[in-house]
Amino acid sequence: MSLVAALLTDFGTRDNYVGVMKGVLLKAAPSVQIVDITHDISAQNVRMAAFQLMTAYRSFPDGCLFISVVDPGVGSDRKVLYAEADRYRFLAPDNGLLSWVFDRARPSLVIDIPLAASPVTDISRTFHGRDVFAPVAGRILNGEDPQKMGKLVKEWVTLPFPPVQRTGSQWKGEILCVDRFGNLVTNVLTEELRPLIKSSKVWFEWGDKSKPFTLRGLANSYSDVDPGKILAIGGSAGFVEISVRDGSAAEATGLKAGSSVTLNFHL
Amino acid sequence: MSLVAALLTDFGTRDNYVGVMKGVLLKAAPSVQIVDITHDISAQNVRMAAFQLMTAYRSFPDGCLFISVVDPGVGSDRKVLYAEADRYRFLAPDNGLLSWVFDRARPSLVIDIPLAASPVTDISRTFHGRDVFAPVAGRILNGEDPQKMGKLVKEWVTLPFPPVQRTGSQWKGEILCVDRFGNLVTNVLTEELRPLIKSSKVWFEWGDKSKPFTLRGLANSYSDVDPGKILAIGGSAGFVEISVRDGSAAEATGLKAGSSVTLNFHL
Amino acid sequence: MSLVAALLTDFGTRDNYVGVMKGVLLKAAPSVQIVDITHDISAQNVRMAAFQLMTAYRSFPDGCLFISVVDPGVGSDRKVLYAEADRYRFLAPDNGLLSWVFDRARPSLVIDIPLAASPVTDISRTFHGRDVFAPVAGRILNGEDPQKMGKLVKEWVTLPFPPVQRTGSQWKGEILCVDRFGNLVTNVLTEELRPLIKSSKVWFEWGDKSKPFTLRGLANSYSDVDPGKILAIGGSAGFVEISVRDGSAAEATGLKAGSSVTLNFHL
Repeated sequence: MSLVAALLTDFGTRDNYVGVMKGVLLKAAPSVQIVDITHDISAQNVRMAAFQLMTAYRSFPDGCLFISVVDPGVGSDRKVLYAEADRYRFLAPDNGLLSWVFDRARPSLVIDIPLAASPVTDISRTFHGRDVFAPVAGRILNGEDPQKMGKLVKEWVTLPFPPVQRTGSQWKGEILCVDRFGNLVTNVLTEELRPLIKSSKVWFEWGDKSKPFTLRGLANSYSDVDPGKILAIGGSAGFVEISVRDGSAAEATGLKAGSSVTLNFHL
Repeated sequence: MSLVAALLTDFGTRDNYVGVMKGVLLKAAPSVQIVDITHDISAQNVRMAAFQLMTAYRSFPDGCLFISVVDPGVGSDRKVLYAEADRYRFLAPDNGLLSWVFDRARPSLVIDIPLAASPVTDISRTFHGRDVFAPVAGRILNGEDPQKMGKLVKEWVTLPFPPVQRTGSQWKGEILCVDRFGNLVTNVLTEELRPLIKSSKVWFEWGDKSKPFTLRGLANSYSDVDPGKILAIGGSAGFVEISVRDGSAAEATGLKAGSSVTLNFHL
Repeated sequence: MSLVAALLTDFGTRDNYVGVMKGVLLKAAPSVQIVDITHDISAQNVRMAAFQLMTAYRSFPDGCLFISVVDPGVGSDRKVLYAEADRYRFLAPDNGLLSWVFDRARPSLVIDIPLAASPVTDISRTFHGRDVFAPVAGRILNGEDPQKMGKLVKEWVTLPFPPVQRTGSQWKGEILCVDRFGNLVTNVLTEELRPLIKSSKVWFEWGDKSKPFTLRGLANSYSDVDPGKILAIGGSAGFVEISVRDGSAAEATGLKAGSSVTLNFHL
């Protein structure tokens, strides 16, 4: 079994929180290899964490344990979940963070891990990354069976993935995420769009309805357009993205996470 | 002995300084596991480095070597210290960075490491992280005895930990640190406050004396208050923190590192 | 051969791009040690990537594989290069990123790696870090011979290193880089300046020609001047830097990457 642990949090890197979690992990499981997915999820943005985890996990080695701590309910009675899905292992608060992974791969096992599963005796009410998630991860990485730590559950908090609304020749989508380059990742799966644009033309439309901005077609690569020009492209996460070659589509369009984008199809 | 090296600097992550230190460490000690505590200490803020190190180190494996480089005196004749305390090992400039660790655990050994202990022959005047701290750490991680590298010292630069001023039914504290969530970490130890609030009520007070903001009592968890509401809570570092549930207490209060907070006790 | 891979990108740390590359690397080569040089190169700034790589690589263990992905041409027909130089190994897009390394150490081998060398079958047009660079690096780290993956090339894209223009008793240089401390790294090699200042005085000059700011001589260390004062100093990368002791020269001078600095020599 792989001894890779991948961390995803909203702890940032200014404080020692992430380093401390890694210290606890290494104390418990000295041979673990720790990889950061990101710690710059905006504070308590469970939805963004769910997106980053969903689009990252399949690139990791089988058996990797993903420890995801974006946890506005820390210190409350929210559950801590251990799950197995798609040859991977997950620890996260029960707040929907795992649900977009579960949309892609039905979990074969979900365990409610009680706080008492942590070897830490004086668990803080504010930092379960250090006091619960990392120590429990240490036990799991050392080969202990999570099924013996808690009880099987069949229900958990679910975060609905924002659907594309399809009506006739129009799809209404939204921006899921703006990346550091200013690329706008939509919720439209490229593989669902591609068959349609073989038989019809697609126009992307956004902004003020009386004077919308429009963009035609799907490019094959950034170099299909001149530098500074806008394009739509099948992005690396499987979703259609709106981008500016050598620039920022977020700046060019004013769109942000949650903004609407309409796709109009014409024969 | 553990081969974990934990790094704490103000080098940031925009430049290659941290990567270069890691390259030097791996060149000298190929099997070392390197962990970042943080590199985002504000430039030359020794006090913040002392705080982050003090509140992090006990989460790491025994024998961990902490390499802390916040070093405004680089290139001057300030000393480089190697220390052992509390089953851990430390390398840092002699500028007070280690003194809050030493407040918690009297060092059993402090060595003045001369620049000549570094195998680097052309030591720069501006980057001792690369030319002194990492190469000396490499020697230590390889099992060489620091006592043979320099001479024992009994005195070092000390940074006084800001005291809570106690007068009758009033404590005057201060904000030590604002974390990325906007939590305000005070210098009041939760374990010192807790016995008092069993027999009396505590009111936190800050801001304009003629019209202060006040906050009553110590919450058990963020979920004790509604989202957006302010609370005081025993934080993960052992100090009382002022927080806003699902929000930023720094934004809500305008307080920052160094700001005063008063605790008033009433029967 | 060392199994260290060092990563340099403009991917930032907000998204999962860097974590995903590391997942792919660990999947392919489980025992690789991964070091970050930096991921905060400003978006698509090949020149800054070339600078950071040139000034970092010699601190790493022999055999280290540097995977550098600042790649505005991703998805176009730009080449992917594998190179060996100076006991190190490099993977990068053919856009000049490697050329300042090559200025220091003539490459002994440069291979054009076709996309087909990647074991990934559905290579995206936007994220070759995940789909090409990391998987090909995995093959190389596993001991496969890059010469069997592509064909030898003798030409590649070159980025000219900005020259110091020398006319009589005047050198015209420029700022290559501003670091996180606000130090201004010039393109003047300290070892080229030092012999001259044995026999003459040097004045640095910048800003408005009618009323330039001037600075005399080269300091030995920051502590040569009082806190807050400006100085020129031989920096850790081998270049002369303009700095402010305990402050930011970028703020004090208004200079930035690309700004001109003149050196005037007087007997």
